[in-house]
Amino acid sequence: MSATEYSVVSRSQHETLVQAAYQHRGYEAEEAASAARMCSEASWNGIRTHNALKALHLDELFGSGGGGCEPGAQIDVLETRFPSVQKWNANKKLGQAVACEAMETCIKLADEYGTGTVAVDNAFHYLWGGGYVMDAAKRGYIAYTNCTSTLAEVVPFFGKFPTLGTNPHSWGFPTTDAVGYPVVIDWATSEIAMGKVEQYKREKKKLEQPFGVDKDGNPTDDPFEVVALQPFGRHKGYGLGLLIELYGAAIGGSLPTLRGRADEADGSGEKTTSTFFFQVTHPEAISSGDFSNGRSQAENITSVVKDILGHGNESCMLPGTIEANAAKLSEEAGGLLFTEAEMDGFLELAEECNVDPTMWNRSRLPTFSA
Amino acid sequence: MSATEYSVVSRSQHETLVQAAYQHRGYEAEEAASAARMCSEASWNGIRTHNALKALHLDELFGSGGGGCEPGAQIDVLETRFPSVQKWNANKKLGQAVACEAMETCIKLADEYGTGTVAVDNAFHYLWGGGYVMDAAKRGYIAYTNCTSTLAEVVPFFGKFPTLGTNPHSWGFPTTDAVGYPVVIDWATSEIAMGKVEQYKREKKKLEQPFGVDKDGNPTDDPFEVVALQPFGRHKGYGLGLLIELYGAAIGGSLPTLRGRADEADGSGEKTTSTFFFQVTHPEAISSGDFSNGRSQAENITSVVKDILGHGNESCMLPGTIEANAAKLSEEAGGLLFTEAEMDGFLELAEECNVDPTMWNRSRLPTFSA
Repeated sequence: MSATEYSVVSRSQHETLVQAAYQHRGYEAEEAASAARMCSEASWNGIRTHNALKALHLDELFGSGGGGCEPGAQIDVLETRFPSVQKWNANKKLGQAVACEAMETCIKLADEYGTGTVAVDNAFHYLWGGGYVMDAAKRGYIAYTNCTSTLAEVVPFFGKFPTLGTNPHSWGFPTTDAVGYPVVIDWATSEIAMGKVEQYKREKKKLEQPFGVDKDGNPTDDPFEVVALQPFGRHKGYGLGLLIELYGAAIGGSLPTLRGRADEADGSGEKTTSTFFFQVTHPEAISSGDFSNGRSQAENITSVVKDILGHGNESCMLPGTIEANAAKLSEEAGGLLFTEAEMDGFLELAEECNVDPTMWNRSRLPTFSA
Repeated sequence: MSATEYSVVSRSQHETLVQAAYQHRGYEAEEAASAARMCSEASWNGIRTHNALKALHLDELFGSGGGGCEPGAQIDVLETRFPSVQKWNANKKLGQAVACEAMETCIKLADEYGTGTVAVDNAFHYLWGGGYVMDAAKRGYIAYTNCTSTLAEVVPFFGKFPTLGTNPHSWGFPTTDAVGYPVVIDWATSEIAMGKVEQYKREKKKLEQPFGVDKDGNPTDDPFEVVALQPFGRHKGYGLGLLIELYGAAIGGSLPTLRGRADEADGSGEKTTSTFFFQVTHPEAISSGDFSNGRSQAENITSVVKDILGHGNESCMLPGTIEANAAKLSEEAGGLLFTEAEMDGFLELAEECNVDPTMWNRSRLPTFSA
């Protein structure tokens, strides 16, 4: 592959613009700053599918533009008799702000009880689950989150009609001492993302396998025929997608086929919001303290990872390696790396939000080839 | 398919024999009874791959016969400052007995704190993770368990050498009010089980896809060439298998490639035992209480499941349906259903353990066609 030339943008310049864009839509400074910080994190770690432009586009479609998200909303912490688990009504507050706060709360609870859990009702899209668990894992915790996706796009195993979200699971494990970065396992429960299908359409290519479902409910590898997605890994990915719907149903979510579809739900009395589930475990809480050859827990994790990636498996990656490599590039470049098309998007955004657009002129910014 | 004729054996007759067989190998009455009860549960729910004969065979190979399990061992509950998470040294106690006790402890902790967790070091194979989460889910709890499998048989994604166990995850969700039985999601993180490969060998059939890996590390669908297994669902199943190795490493487990291989580990100072992780969540702890159209939490779960299996998906199964259907057959037959080959195995076992073998004479037992 030939190298791409990126513009290098500092985190602060990026976050100033993104925060302004959220505030321009009516969000308050603090929640807008949370969202902007998570957008920086996504771009720093090479998650191009969840950058600020995507976040703002989703907000327009489903969030402050679509009634799914309420700028300035406050979280209600609901009463409970269970000290290590909190339940929140997010009142459709901006997802990234809610998720950052939920993860902080889980960490505090885990410090006290061993595990901490926060279940969130009336939530709006938190965008990149991997970011929250990565952050907690970098701070030394085992972290997990799941959320019901805005739209039902996935069919059950052997099913015909999409009744499940692409429902992502995200796990972070504190392996920085072992390998230099946290293991982050973070994926949707569909075989591919709907965005990927759009990309195959643009490139006029078939999908690698019949990962889609056509209008009659038959598997298809033709992106132009795809109306819904298969769960990944046959019945196993189906189970994992279903699990999040069950968590959602237990927390307060409603019918998956009406989620994110306020117009269709109108008059039905059914909620259309998503739910989040967060959990953090303190690694000391599960440590027997008895590791082979006198190793510490961190050293033991290092030995196990080395064993897994030894024996001829040296070229295998850990989940989280791609993000860590991207972060290394950002570090090297000294900022966030954006393509020409992305820079055009930001320039447009700056003009829209009355942020000085000259700062977003590509000719005035350093470049980086990668 | 033509119907099979099964012998019908009462649970108590079955458990008497299985308990005697464990005691014959030196196990104490209480732990032997736990194991026997879980064998009954497996057979009642149609889990033929984890019946008593398999359990006793594994014990012979890796357990009391192979040094992996110590009859009469006692669990040490380790000191901790975290009230909702316990850590145990199982001292190689029989896995089923440890798992039953761990799940009970998780339930007690969840009743008090919202979630309860037990991490177990120096564990020996608990056989059927689905059984423990099914039991907790029938009692109204959300339950989860994972364990590192005895042997490393799975290669990392794009790997050549098996350095991961088939490491199963098991989730149980309290959906009895919704659908008549709990959702039980329970599978290994390999594409198929090694036992399935043996079956294909006997039947001289190719695997459906190249689910195996040959001696040179290449994918293969020829069961005779298979020396290791692929993780299911590409990088996603790999992540899920890896996650259990990381939990194991944090708890106290050692190198995956030496696990269950005491001879190879001899002199290395490395432990060869498995680890378990159990967690229970009280569904009230995550309930916002705000369900659409005034539904209760259970009614809401019913509505969500109906939505998922509606819209043309009526013929789809839930994870747990197969087990529930098998349990229905057992109920109808009035006992556990065993094939002729299984009955021969039990008869042999009865003779070996000085249990009256006449009770295991097929001609003296009722039969059931299914």
